[in-house]
Amino acid sequence: MPAIANPSLLILLHHHHHHHLRPRRFATALLPQTLLSLLSSSIRAPALRAHSTSSSAQTQPLSTDNARTGRSGSISSPPVQPDIAQKIDINPPKGTRDFPPEDMRLRNWLFNNFKELYCFEDRGNRRVALRPELTPSLARLVIQKGKSVPLPLKWFAVGQCWRYERMTRGRRREHYQWNMDIIGVPDVTAEAELISSIVTFFKRIGITASDVGFKVSSRKVLQEVLRGYSVPDHLFGRVCVIIDKMEKIPIDDIKKELRSAELSEEVIEELLQVLSVKSLEKLEEKLGTVGEALVDLKQLFSLAEKYGYADWIQFDASVVRGLAYYTGIVFEGFDREGKLRAICGGGRYDHLLSTFGGDNIPACGFGFGDAVIVELLKEKGLLPELSPQVENIVCSLDQDLRGTAAAVASILRQKGQSVDLVLENKPLKWVFKRAARINAQRLILVGSAEWQKGMVGVKILTSGEQYEVKVDELE
Amino acid sequence: MPAIANPSLLILLHHHHHHHLRPRRFATALLPQTLLSLLSSSIRAPALRAHSTSSSAQTQPLSTDNARTGRSGSISSPPVQPDIAQKIDINPPKGTRDFPPEDMRLRNWLFNNFKELYCFEDRGNRRVALRPELTPSLARLVIQKGKSVPLPLKWFAVGQCWRYERMTRGRRREHYQWNMDIIGVPDVTAEAELISSIVTFFKRIGITASDVGFKVSSRKVLQEVLRGYSVPDHLFGRVCVIIDKMEKIPIDDIKKELRSAELSEEVIEELLQVLSVKSLEKLEEKLGTVGEALVDLKQLFSLAEKYGYADWIQFDASVVRGLAYYTGIVFEGFDREGKLRAICGGGRYDHLLSTFGGDNIPACGFGFGDAVIVELLKEKGLLPELSPQVENIVCSLDQDLRGTAAAVASILRQKGQSVDLVLENKPLKWVFKRAARINAQRLILVGSAEWQKGMVGVKILTSGEQYEVKVDELE
Repeated sequence: MPAIANPSLLILLHHHHHHHLRPRRFATALLPQTLLSLLSSSIRAPALRAHSTSSSAQTQPLSTDNARTGRSGSISSPPVQPDIAQKIDINPPKGTRDFPPEDMRLRNWLFNNFKELYCFEDRGNRRVALRPELTPSLARLVIQKGKSVPLPLKWFAVGQCWRYERMTRGRRREHYQWNMDIIGVPDVTAEAELISSIVTFFKRIGITASDVGFKVSSRKVLQEVLRGYSVPDHLFGRVCVIIDKMEKIPIDDIKKELRSAELSEEVIEELLQVLSVKSLEKLEEKLGTVGEALVDLKQLFSLAEKYGYADWIQFDASVVRGLAYYTGIVFEGFDREGKLRAICGGGRYDHLLSTFGGDNIPACGFGFGDAVIVELLKEKGLLPELSPQVENIVCSLDQDLRGTAAAVASILRQKGQSVDLVLENKPLKWVFKRAARINAQRLILVGSAEWQKGMVGVKILTSGEQYEVKVDELE
Repeated sequence: MPAIANPSLLILLHHHHHHHLRPRRFATALLPQTLLSLLSSSIRAPALRAHSTSSSAQTQPLSTDNARTGRSGSISSPPVQPDIAQKIDINPPKGTRDFPPEDMRLRNWLFNNFKELYCFEDRGNRRVALRPELTPSLARLVIQKGKSVPLPLKWFAVGQCWRYERMTRGRRREHYQWNMDIIGVPDVTAEAELISSIVTFFKRIGITASDVGFKVSSRKVLQEVLRGYSVPDHLFGRVCVIIDKMEKIPIDDIKKELRSAELSEEVIEELLQVLSVKSLEKLEEKLGTVGEALVDLKQLFSLAEKYGYADWIQFDASVVRGLAYYTGIVFEGFDREGKLRAICGGGRYDHLLSTFGGDNIPACGFGFGDAVIVELLKEKGLLPELSPQVENIVCSLDQDLRGTAAAVASILRQKGQSVDLVLENKPLKWVFKRAARINAQRLILVGSAEWQKGMVGVKILTSGEQYEVKVDELE
């Protein structure tokens, strides 16, 4: 399947000349993704529930430009008393947005996360950023293509991504990311197929199931626990993002954050217990057999058996992944020695396209960076030796024959052969040295005596065999 | 030869917290190139010859932070009278730079040209820009590799480049650029080889010498004219950049600019006459036979004959190319119908590496964008039809056999075959439709009756031929 075209510049926000931050036409497709994909630190801010624009403006100085603005149509109207039975148009002025506290928290959080983005304002006053990942571009493309591409789509892409991060082993500010996504398949067969692709890739480069594993879970596990305790659905994404930090921050901080997300002690204890589950049998004890979480997971493990990669995957309820948009199966590749950070990760994101304003299309995918895998290959001594390889080195024995050597090179190239043409007058010793260094298979020597007969000298460099041949007969 | 690794972020300047603009360690390798490569508009500023830092600071407000600073070691010394016979340390304070007028003009010009760059300050206060072209990265890499890579290097790269420009046909803000460079060959054989590569590429995609030509000249032509009139060498690059604008701005403006570069009317007339020359014979009449310009050009045309692309190239003295770093042969691919802007361009840049602080290594190269060539292919009706191609589409006839179908897909993939596995329960009609759309060569059907015998159904989609085969025998 073809790679998708990924322009690297994401337009985040249009910075209006009146300093109102408002989304542009494209921004509807782009911003929400960025919001969602980074939804990790906003939840630390205390949840102000006040919904008035003025409280937003007071608590959030950044929004003053905008938040106090009345609706343009009613600017000259007399002040309206809330107890008067008159309909108030509750919309903000056309083309502007209010930032009630929950939106403002999101906006502050987003702006704070610009730290990790390479973002700036271009000469047309658009706020743009170098893409930190490829999924937003994919989502935009899929929505743009709309119904002209029959589903399912099975697309991959390899593109550069940028994040301004502290650099550690296998984490750089610029990396290439291999993405593979299946758009339009609601069944867990799609996730199974994605993991199969990664396993196939690993096998091809010499990595085995004893080097690498996949931790697999489903976000529906958490969802079912939360629903069991009647925790409202809108808290779900937020809880997932907190849980994802389990291995990075102390458990007490996790609990504190969960409490601030209005979870009771009972729910928090149950959640943490479920998260420690490492087998489907235990999970079944916890959740019963009927929920989608268990059905999906069982099907995935059964498919893995058929595909032949069952030994690569293991259930681990603690895996939730950091991106807020995942809705079902989530997985994460890890090195079994535990020396490196996650090698790859992915999952199902069934609501992402509709969040962006597209149709409600099921989807799943993964991202796989080039940096950690190279570290792993080094670690395992599996880095291949890739020496240069050239079929021919062509050289004239005489300065006057350099053009002729060029003609010979041209003939060989037209036959599809690779040629390193010696462009300078160099002694044969130098030519042999270079031939060895580029692993040339044969040396073609253009000398005047041979050339007068329409012939060239050939030396097979591996065997040392030497002969003369008509130029037309060179294959 | 391997493609070079090109980080897309160029560090331009370190924006020091004291607001002194000073180069960082990498900047020595990067800044000059950017300066050079964009050296097109600075020359319009009147040439202030005053060399004092204070006049610089007065005429150029941007430099006030820096230009007046005394040397740190002498801060507490008493003021020094110029008539006292005492040595004055004329260096700026360690780690800072003065901006005398000629440097300041360059700096202003550079900052003005940031308009065309996607440039911004990163979170570490580095001024960075998305690379507008690949040569700076190449130069950096070559200098960094130093003597560990034996010359000559023959490298190519295909990388994304960004320019914030008015968008026109074949000119977008993001494009991929194919670059090819030969580092370490002083002879014109290198340029001949580069042009040969482009011609080979054109032929491969169906473009002929009647579609596209190369205008070829040498900057040494201008140099010899200027030297003939004793015009100082330092004006050379500046004159080239003015001349490059010949087709873009009125001839009177060109003359005005040349006058402001201190060229006499006589020299200007002679220059313009030489630039109108379109044959080597005429050029020989003008310059005589001894100069390097003519020797180089004659050799290039003679090599082109041998390579077999003489009908693609023509001498045209008006070609000088816009980048200031070229020193010898310059060339430019154009469509013969004159509908499009230059298709590609390149030339010799023998001084670039030493300007960057590297050894004095001869080099030449070209850049070739992906946008104009696609326009040309459309224009000529030569855009290929590239339909998806998949060897197998694998489908189970029964939901229970989906895992088995996955196993079959797995086996085929291990044999190196491409497989589109149907991941949903779909009617056969749908499967055939999809098979047609992806141009699948055969359909593998996994049904329970056949599977019990360890067999699958195969339908060759081109011929309609149908048979059953053991899974292990599927090739």
